[in-house]
Amino acid sequence: MAEFMTETAERSAVVPRPGTSGERAGRSGDGAAGPLDGQEAAALLERTRALVDPELRAAFASLPGSMRRVALYHFGWQHADGTPAAGNAGKAIRPALVLAAATALGGPAARAAAVRAAAAVELVHNFTLLHDDVMDRDTARRHRPTAWTVFGDPDAILAGDALQALALRMLAEDPHPAAVPAASRLAACVVELCAGQHTDTDLESRAPDDVTLDEVLVMAEAKTGALIGCACAVGALYAGAGDEEVAALDGFGRQAGLAFQLIDDVIGIWGDPRNTGKPAGADLAARKKSLPVVAALTSGTPAATELADLYAKPHHGQDAEAAAEIARTAQAVERAGGRDWAQAEAADRMARAVQELARAVPDPEAAGGLLALAEFVTRRSS
Amino acid sequence: MAEFMTETAERSAVVPRPGTSGERAGRSGDGAAGPLDGQEAAALLERTRALVDPELRAAFASLPGSMRRVALYHFGWQHADGTPAAGNAGKAIRPALVLAAATALGGPAARAAAVRAAAAVELVHNFTLLHDDVMDRDTARRHRPTAWTVFGDPDAILAGDALQALALRMLAEDPHPAAVPAASRLAACVVELCAGQHTDTDLESRAPDDVTLDEVLVMAEAKTGALIGCACAVGALYAGAGDEEVAALDGFGRQAGLAFQLIDDVIGIWGDPRNTGKPAGADLAARKKSLPVVAALTSGTPAATELADLYAKPHHGQDAEAAAEIARTAQAVERAGGRDWAQAEAADRMARAVQELARAVPDPEAAGGLLALAEFVTRRSS
Repeated sequence: MAEFMTETAERSAVVPRPGTSGERAGRSGDGAAGPLDGQEAAALLERTRALVDPELRAAFASLPGSMRRVALYHFGWQHADGTPAAGNAGKAIRPALVLAAATALGGPAARAAAVRAAAAVELVHNFTLLHDDVMDRDTARRHRPTAWTVFGDPDAILAGDALQALALRMLAEDPHPAAVPAASRLAACVVELCAGQHTDTDLESRAPDDVTLDEVLVMAEAKTGALIGCACAVGALYAGAGDEEVAALDGFGRQAGLAFQLIDDVIGIWGDPRNTGKPAGADLAARKKSLPVVAALTSGTPAATELADLYAKPHHGQDAEAAAEIARTAQAVERAGGRDWAQAEAADRMARAVQELARAVPDPEAAGGLLALAEFVTRRSS
Repeated sequence: MAEFMTETAERSAVVPRPGTSGERAGRSGDGAAGPLDGQEAAALLERTRALVDPELRAAFASLPGSMRRVALYHFGWQHADGTPAAGNAGKAIRPALVLAAATALGGPAARAAAVRAAAAVELVHNFTLLHDDVMDRDTARRHRPTAWTVFGDPDAILAGDALQALALRMLAEDPHPAAVPAASRLAACVVELCAGQHTDTDLESRAPDDVTLDEVLVMAEAKTGALIGCACAVGALYAGAGDEEVAALDGFGRQAGLAFQLIDDVIGIWGDPRNTGKPAGADLAARKKSLPVVAALTSGTPAATELADLYAKPHHGQDAEAAAEIARTAQAVERAGGRDWAQAEAADRMARAVQELARAVPDPEAAGGLLALAEFVTRRSS
């Protein structure tokens, strides 16, 4: 069982600040518009979309109509009826990490060479989203109805299958010497993602007092950390990095991914509905065994008992009484230390991520892009 | 609309016999135990299992427990409770074709080199079975409950996802120069298989008079022919074959695969329940739009109208009246020419397959294994 911090950490202060851990987390930037304000990350994400989207669109154009339709809808590039849509294909964090890792270790030439691999990683991410939504019966994704609710389970499953195949085909047809080891890593990562999704489903079906914090951490690393680590490792491969650097970048991504999941879980409980697009405490209403909740349940505090009693009954309704019950549940998680623990753990994971990054990319300027992206995902508020 | 033969073809006489097309279909064999009696094919299939199963078992051992359990169950190597089972992993036609194609064009050394690729093709086949059973809600496969009925939809979907990843990972980690083009072909084939499955689902949901024979043929080629063609092409790649030979072997497999599907559809209507393990006329009871049925429905004969009327109502019950209705339906398909057409078309496809084979492998002795396997699958009676 983890130790809890005794005071509430500043909500977004999970990233070591310059001055406190500057020797590990040194960065480039002019101070006024450094990575911490998110501008560098936003620019990287925007450039990633500009580079990767044409690859994705070309790949989709090679698909038979039925699967192309689902893929274009899922990426937000078409409405359900096939007419063009403004698009919300997600933040492109994973392909941005591929390109940033390639740049950090191999400069602009490596970044240019890694665009196809970045698209392949994004395809794998979206294949798992399509299938996870089917399994979890989730009805909304990126503020739109999920693909299975629009096209049915079979077409959503088939589109996911096809996106996985497309991703690995793109790497098989990429003549770059890194493409084959990248394909091997990406395929191994798919197996780990599946294991994470299995464990997630399994944990949700178990009684709250039958779940340990270690199990949830292992699940989160497999489900979220693995692909973020793989993205960084693939970028390193395209820069011609050696095994140790590739492993260190994988570690950087895994730890940053866990930090992201911890913050995401905090937002799932205390996030502002105006930012999250979900009702307040949606994860609590669904009785989700997220990291802060399991930390609280296993804290051995009186509030843990109170929380376990609340979680033993399903949540109903959307009236004032139901809202008050959610508020009480959130308070129990907080009094049991779940919120503080999650934020301290996220900060700890980010510190580890920064250490791994420094191993592979000792030059703070070169590491700036990767650090900016890691900070961006862990500092988001929606 | 296809022309129908006017007399019933001999049930299993879909393969050009020596003497009638011996100049194209010349084969090795001692006459007493040549390929036509199935002994050569049976020996090839047995040897394939002996070579490929250890690769498959080693691949499964690398899977996390939850997916390993589903995979071992699906292959018939474990019971649902995880205890060892005698096993019925299927006939291993596709990996046998990989090895036979490699042997035909490259001899025993190519066969030995292609074992891992043969296992990868078998994994892709089984990934699609796992997912198709979920989509089609099929409850039996190889005389056992399907994986989703035992482990639930999520674990069956995840196991399928993992088997696809495993297949492409095995090729990415195979140092043979054919591995990368084989991976590219196999990934492209997955997309075609998905398209075939989509069209199959789509055709089944449409009214019987809204389906053309061409559509069903295209669907059958994508769903069945594509992977059989890919298996042969992958074997050719491992023998170092050139583009033309690879394309010819792909064509051989596609045509043989269509012949197989035609015969399979005939068996689905007129097959002996003692051999098929399904009730007589199971495909008719399910109102399946199989190739002989659509040929009959689109024949413009009086029997076609009778068949359309029967197909307009769902089939119910298992009593004598229900059995009589199935018998009437089968007779209508036969009188409308569906059975004869399917058998003539299968013979035609096999003739085209043999032509393609002769293009790539002019030596009859070298082509013997591939021909024996093609004859085996199209002459089966269950």
